Amino acid sequence: MPIADKVREALGSASLIRKMFEEGSRLKERHGAENVFDFSLGNPDLDPPPEFRNALSKRAAEDPKGSHGYMPNAGYPEVRAALATACSLEQGTRLDRSCIVMSCGAAGGLNVVFKTLLNPGDTVVVPSPYFMEYRAYAENHGARLVPVPTLPDFSLDLGAIETALAEKNSAALLINSPHNPTGRVYPGRAIADLARILSAQGRRSGRFPYLIADEPYRDIAYTPVPPVLAAYPHSLVVSSFSKSLSLAGERIGFIAVNPEAADKEDIMNALSYATRVLGFVNAPALMQWIVGDLTRARVDAAVYARRRDCFKAVLDRVGIGYAEPEGAFYLFCQVPGGAYDRLFVDHLASHLILGVPGAGFGAPGWVRFAYCVDEKVIKASEPAFERALQSWQPPAAEA
Amino acid sequence: MPIADKVREALGSASLIRKMFEEGSRLKERHGAENVFDFSLGNPDLDPPPEFRNALSKRAAEDPKGSHGYMPNAGYPEVRAALATACSLEQGTRLDRSCIVMSCGAAGGLNVVFKTLLNPGDTVVVPSPYFMEYRAYAENHGARLVPVPTLPDFSLDLGAIETALAEKNSAALLINSPHNPTGRVYPGRAIADLARILSAQGRRSGRFPYLIADEPYRDIAYTPVPPVLAAYPHSLVVSSFSKSLSLAGERIGFIAVNPEAADKEDIMNALSYATRVLGFVNAPALMQWIVGDLTRARVDAAVYARRRDCFKAVLDRVGIGYAEPEGAFYLFCQVPGGAYDRLFVDHLASHLILGVPGAGFGAPGWVRFAYCVDEKVIKASEPAFERALQSWQPPAAEA
Repeated sequence: MPIADKVREALGSASLIRKMFEEGSRLKERHGAENVFDFSLGNPDLDPPPEFRNALSKRAAEDPKGSHGYMPNAGYPEVRAALATACSLEQGTRLDRSCIVMSCGAAGGLNVVFKTLLNPGDTVVVPSPYFMEYRAYAENHGARLVPVPTLPDFSLDLGAIETALAEKNSAALLINSPHNPTGRVYPGRAIADLARILSAQGRRSGRFPYLIADEPYRDIAYTPVPPVLAAYPHSLVVSSFSKSLSLAGERIGFIAVNPEAADKEDIMNALSYATRVLGFVNAPALMQWIVGDLTRARVDAAVYARRRDCFKAVLDRVGIGYAEPEGAFYLFCQVPGGAYDRLFVDHLASHLILGVPGAGFGAPGWVRFAYCVDEKVIKASEPAFERALQSWQPPAAEA
Repeated sequence: MPIADKVREALGSASLIRKMFEEGSRLKERHGAENVFDFSLGNPDLDPPPEFRNALSKRAAEDPKGSHGYMPNAGYPEVRAALATACSLEQGTRLDRSCIVMSCGAAGGLNVVFKTLLNPGDTVVVPSPYFMEYRAYAENHGARLVPVPTLPDFSLDLGAIETALAEKNSAALLINSPHNPTGRVYPGRAIADLARILSAQGRRSGRFPYLIADEPYRDIAYTPVPPVLAAYPHSLVVSSFSKSLSLAGERIGFIAVNPEAADKEDIMNALSYATRVLGFVNAPALMQWIVGDLTRARVDAAVYARRRDCFKAVLDRVGIGYAEPEGAFYLFCQVPGGAYDRLFVDHLASHLILGVPGAGFGAPGWVRFAYCVDEKVIKASEPAFERALQSWQPPAAEA
């Protein structure tokens, strides 16, 4: 008996990116990993900060009785309280532990939020380009992602968002700032505009759409990241320590619910329930304790800022245009001469440079490079970029 | 805007058990935790074995570079290889790492398996009583659980299973051995009979149903637990270290796919994909390394065996009947005089004894007591059991 139809379809359509990963592995095997410039993956290469190692050693030495067993599905009350305090500062809103649910990273958190809020047939509006997994997350729960275009500099097109939210089954607006893949950070003014649009829509229809902010890159930013919860009552933040503490593989994050949200108590009960029945059960116990102890620790974002500058200089010299990154660790670049991002990515790969085609993010004609790699790799890639651009010819039909 | 309709319904219907937990907390607050006999939760109280602490300390001291970042969604190849070797012995089938996907516990693993295998409208046949979360797991993926009765001693009713599997949308048979809540371990003969039924169904319909074995209690058994993969090619095992290493809160487990399964490569790709898009992304990194190092370590199941004997002696003396437990750490008991399990559980709670009504497992008239608690608690509960039984009167309508 075959696997599920939808999964089979998804594996088919995902095969382009998988092909790229596989090609990357083949290239590294053939040419040596040190000769391949792999900018394809958003896997932080920085070590966790020293406080992490101390906290881990301390925990391992103490290893208190019962500390690896089940706890309430929402997480340890002490950890939730510590994160509520930290999150209150970031979000300009007073949160207590009753607003926090620990999650298996932001990806787990988003699935828990979608399960909690979305009825089958509901839609989630998202500014495009967007992180490619959002579509599958919505579909897991019978809902549908509705991408809306952004302005040429990838800032929000408020009119387009307003129109999309007015559609019958719009349940939520999902934003991601600092943004993967564009590096955009939405300023306070944009958040205030969104709040105004969401409130107007709610008053008009009697149904206030939720504002869901996916914020795993909040601490990797080169400009202030404004609060979201302070701006609009029916809002949730989903975040993780994947980037801020370089713990992407440990699957630890949290959901923060606005204390002013309508149905807040229902939402909290439902988030616990969804955490349980989706099979997460709870965020990993040991990492809960550790992130609860480390609310002030961060990797050094200045390292990413230096790499960004280094990568920008390379792109400037070889003549590739890009969106100015205000946060996260991606450079979203224009494919020279056209919309052939997949061909361009293949062409770059033949010069041992790996990126991700913008089509994967709903933005054909662009390519994403991740700069969570050593500065030496970025510098060393320049001659390869030069050679690749000299020999790059978009198909004639484009002219 | 309210939460999702289905979640709201589920919260409503789950409220009986939640009410019980809440009442438990209230009772402990009022009477002191040491005076409440809490047999409601399957949360192992044994410490992880000493090897675990050593492995954790060693890992914390070494903390190798990159060891908390992303790895392939299926898990670290070395860890998968180690578990394949261990699982080959248990399952009587030669597995290599290409058969293993690391999961966030067995609950996460089952959701990943269901997402991988089930089309909307498909059914999963399960012998009843059954672990109550299975129903929600199937519904998460648009599928439906079909409980089939077991024989009076909770052994498998092969005729009932055969009939249920012959229904049009039957995609899989889900078994759980050692069994929660009945403590039943299916003998090798029963597994062979199931294989025969599944094969006959496949030959008849052209569609071989999958056999999914949920085995988190394999190492807590008082009789040999026979292999499943050796018996039937289209089979998968889902397991965890929640009980064998007392790591329930760390969410670490695995899926093992029969190397002989049709579409095995498709299944493996789909399991990785499902792990990713359901938001697990991967099993927690640190715990993967640790369980990979500890394939021979186990908690001491003899402790559970002693508690079982102690609890049985209490039940024998007070006159409560139960299914003879062959594994896991539950005693599934007959409500004296009738089918009023919810009333009986309430009555026991008034005597500070906490159990779970059988109705939650599809078995009204029964009550589950978990004996993953100190033997002292079990012994001390006897006078409370005596008093409770003396004053227990099932409603007159039952007579």
